[in-house]
Amino acid sequence: MTRERLYLFDTTLRDGQQTQGVQFSTDEKLTIARALDSLGIDHIEGGWPGANPTDSAFFDAAPQTRATMTAFGMTKRNGMSAENDDVLAAVLNANTPAVCLVGKTHDFHVETALGITLAENTDNIAKSVAHLVAQGREAIFDAEHFFDGYKANPDYALRAIRAAYDAGARWIALCDTNGGTLPADVGRITAAVIAAGIPGDHLGIHTHNDTENAVACALAAVDAGARQIQGTLNGLGERCGNANLTTLIPILLLKEPYASRFETGVPPEALENLTRISRMLDEILNRVPQKQAAFVGASAFAHKAGLHASAIAKDPTTYEHIDPARVGNTRIIPMSNQAGQSNLRERLTGMGLAVDRADPALGRILDRIKTREAEGYSYDTAQASFELLAREELGQLPEFFDVKRYRVTVERRKNKYDKMISLSEAVVVVKVDGEKLLSVSESMDETGSDRGPVNALSKALSKDLGRYSAHLEDLRLVDFKVRITQGGTEAVTRVIIDSEDGQGRRWSTVGVSANIVDASFEALLDAIKWKLIRDVA
Amino acid sequence: MTRERLYLFDTTLRDGQQTQGVQFSTDEKLTIARALDSLGIDHIEGGWPGANPTDSAFFDAAPQTRATMTAFGMTKRNGMSAENDDVLAAVLNANTPAVCLVGKTHDFHVETALGITLAENTDNIAKSVAHLVAQGREAIFDAEHFFDGYKANPDYALRAIRAAYDAGARWIALCDTNGGTLPADVGRITAAVIAAGIPGDHLGIHTHNDTENAVACALAAVDAGARQIQGTLNGLGERCGNANLTTLIPILLLKEPYASRFETGVPPEALENLTRISRMLDEILNRVPQKQAAFVGASAFAHKAGLHASAIAKDPTTYEHIDPARVGNTRIIPMSNQAGQSNLRERLTGMGLAVDRADPALGRILDRIKTREAEGYSYDTAQASFELLAREELGQLPEFFDVKRYRVTVERRKNKYDKMISLSEAVVVVKVDGEKLLSVSESMDETGSDRGPVNALSKALSKDLGRYSAHLEDLRLVDFKVRITQGGTEAVTRVIIDSEDGQGRRWSTVGVSANIVDASFEALLDAIKWKLIRDVA
Repeated sequence: MTRERLYLFDTTLRDGQQTQGVQFSTDEKLTIARALDSLGIDHIEGGWPGANPTDSAFFDAAPQTRATMTAFGMTKRNGMSAENDDVLAAVLNANTPAVCLVGKTHDFHVETALGITLAENTDNIAKSVAHLVAQGREAIFDAEHFFDGYKANPDYALRAIRAAYDAGARWIALCDTNGGTLPADVGRITAAVIAAGIPGDHLGIHTHNDTENAVACALAAVDAGARQIQGTLNGLGERCGNANLTTLIPILLLKEPYASRFETGVPPEALENLTRISRMLDEILNRVPQKQAAFVGASAFAHKAGLHASAIAKDPTTYEHIDPARVGNTRIIPMSNQAGQSNLRERLTGMGLAVDRADPALGRILDRIKTREAEGYSYDTAQASFELLAREELGQLPEFFDVKRYRVTVERRKNKYDKMISLSEAVVVVKVDGEKLLSVSESMDETGSDRGPVNALSKALSKDLGRYSAHLEDLRLVDFKVRITQGGTEAVTRVIIDSEDGQGRRWSTVGVSANIVDASFEALLDAIKWKLIRDVA
Repeated sequence: MTRERLYLFDTTLRDGQQTQGVQFSTDEKLTIARALDSLGIDHIEGGWPGANPTDSAFFDAAPQTRATMTAFGMTKRNGMSAENDDVLAAVLNANTPAVCLVGKTHDFHVETALGITLAENTDNIAKSVAHLVAQGREAIFDAEHFFDGYKANPDYALRAIRAAYDAGARWIALCDTNGGTLPADVGRITAAVIAAGIPGDHLGIHTHNDTENAVACALAAVDAGARQIQGTLNGLGERCGNANLTTLIPILLLKEPYASRFETGVPPEALENLTRISRMLDEILNRVPQKQAAFVGASAFAHKAGLHASAIAKDPTTYEHIDPARVGNTRIIPMSNQAGQSNLRERLTGMGLAVDRADPALGRILDRIKTREAEGYSYDTAQASFELLAREELGQLPEFFDVKRYRVTVERRKNKYDKMISLSEAVVVVKVDGEKLLSVSESMDETGSDRGPVNALSKALSKDLGRYSAHLEDLRLVDFKVRITQGGTEAVTRVIIDSEDGQGRRWSTVGVSANIVDASFEALLDAIKWKLIRDVA
């Protein structure tokens, strides 16, 4: 039986940006677009060009993707032609192969919010879509409030999307904009749309999670015949978020009846990167990954109940609906580190550290990671710190230098012009090759601005490390993330530092302490050691 | 039309305790049980008496509840009578009016995990349930892996639950133990069970969130005829959690077709406590509440998109599927750069700051927000800092005190036992009511651990603020988020601090500086001022 094609439309960069507290930079958008493309998403909606500067900059710099890059906008305003609408022109000027325009299909919104007649609205939809088609773009129509509109006035709601379809829209996305429609209604209304003559392979579904049913609603629409799913990574989005593609993708690829009936653009090997990509997005947003997230959460395959854990040890299918490896996640069972050791060896080999299967250091490394994770460390991203820990247990970590002590002072006061100024100063004392070296630095940069205590400490630390100093000249701290986490019974600060050097290397290290400066110092030390291993050892 | 009764069975205290990282104390269990009872839940499953000491202690101390207190256990073991099974006896000894016993219904599990014959298993179920009934208890049978069992061997799965039903079980809960069954299958199989002769008003549904469909699966079973829903508050539970009652309750009470068709034990006025109860549970667990949670999340009614926000100001029903007040939640219109003057007025009114439409301060506030956002500030979450900014422009910000200067020192060195220790010290100089006050604090907590420079600074700052000090005793820093962001042309540090006080208030403030200590200090200052406005001004 040939499988039907199901299309995935990602709007992390547009609707996902409506999440409270989320504000992507252009660079972050580029990183996410590349990750989405590596997954095999069909459409990447990048933002609304013209509506905000970051979105415009993203489209100017948009990467070459296999996915169809899509710009978002709205249908032309009343009383002007599609050609003369400057808002629409700005969207088209992003020059994307596809354009998605939102328009109204709910009579109440047309008459109340827009204050125009139903016929005018239908005409605006038709003219806007025709304009896209005339420009050679793939046209996607986002039917705002479609389900509420259909319930209020089915004739008009259908007339509105029919206008888009007849004008040449490739896709009509049925949007449950306020997230209030339940799965049964989504299924029933989608079936009614198809019965009214708009083919399912031209219908998309766009749902929100306001009743925790966004995923179920998307599936209900697919069951009824829709063939495009719109959603976001990690379910980002306005209010409670959009349909979570991080959940929908494994359902479609691994669960029946979907796996047998449908084909998507996501190959099985890309699915194995799903957990990594989900965590990367959280990392960019500086969010704590949700442990209980379906498929990709750290607890998704954690078996706490004693009865479950012992059955899992005999046969994982007893309490697992899928193999966690299929989505790049891992099983967590108390007291089992048999599987742990072989994964660990694999990871060490990947770092160029060949270890014998019988090496007792493997067990010690696992134990230390477990202890450290309980203290608040995290090695998901801090691969360089993980490598140093492993090297230490394997006896492959040179002792380059020894830090004896440091002191940092941060001061803020009024200067002689009665302006508040701040300044930090750091003193570091190290021993290198038996010699004691004292360095002091302050946090002022070339422009006279205070760059803070971690900057002062970093400068003082690398200022004089004897014969190693030359290797640290091209070391640069590029990112710095701090989060409060649980370490044993109390809250601690976890700092993750991303560093890079003149040779294009980029690496991450971690430090944990109740004291933020101390946690930073630990991560800085690791960053330096990791580089010295490569340049000196 | 008379509405049918739908029953709610809560297992927060039993299955919810299987959440990774969750370990309730007996006192916490009592607090949660009282909250569940105040909501109007029908059954409260308190734990497994005999299986762990906290559960036994809970039943010993169990509060008088309107809800039916329920003990959990498993069907009798093979080869002994129900009367002689000490594990079952311990469950009965808790003396609860209802007892819920889990048993196997999937042939594979019976034969593989238990290693007994299918007939023996059916007999164990029947004898166990009959024993409960003979003791005058309400008997509930948890049919483990029922859906997988039905798919593998429908005859046996039905035979197993029929054994419980014929022996007098009041409820048969169909459990999707590994969370892998999708809503359509749950609906189809539940309907098949009813068609096979077990009445829907004796069927419960117990689902897990492994595909993010736990709520949808519960609804699908109700649509098919089941009349009891099992779930947990905030969706706690093994792996990805159980069906979330915090979501299901408002769906059943507020959304169609459920609101018209069914009656539950939850009165509308109890529903208004839902958000508070959800946050209380997070408080007990020391978890940061999920902002995007359906109905009760802080972002659930937050309207960030400019188009949405301006429509909401005209009529909230345009982008809200329910009135947030029905679940005790509140609408938020975040002040992002996408919002305009009318949103701003709406937001200020919500904060109790009535401003005339023509007040030129509105324009100034918007300008300052724009400038500050360009400097790296963000007011999406830091609503308290936003309020202070607005108050300043409106001339409604009292000048409580003036910070003249501060100095923080962080030192790390070896102590006399040759162990590395770190210590921070902060000096703050403020002027209150014309008087200059100097305070010094160090970062050591009661246990002798260093809590870092921000802690020292926070303590020194609130140590002596003259007549304001008394109001700051219950101020607590609960979360602290740091990220590097762009401020103008250079990288700056943005700190967001979440604070709470003894009156249950929780608020967020922001600080931005290249210097992390300084950014933290700014956010701390805002946190203090926001509280003083409420407690003093």
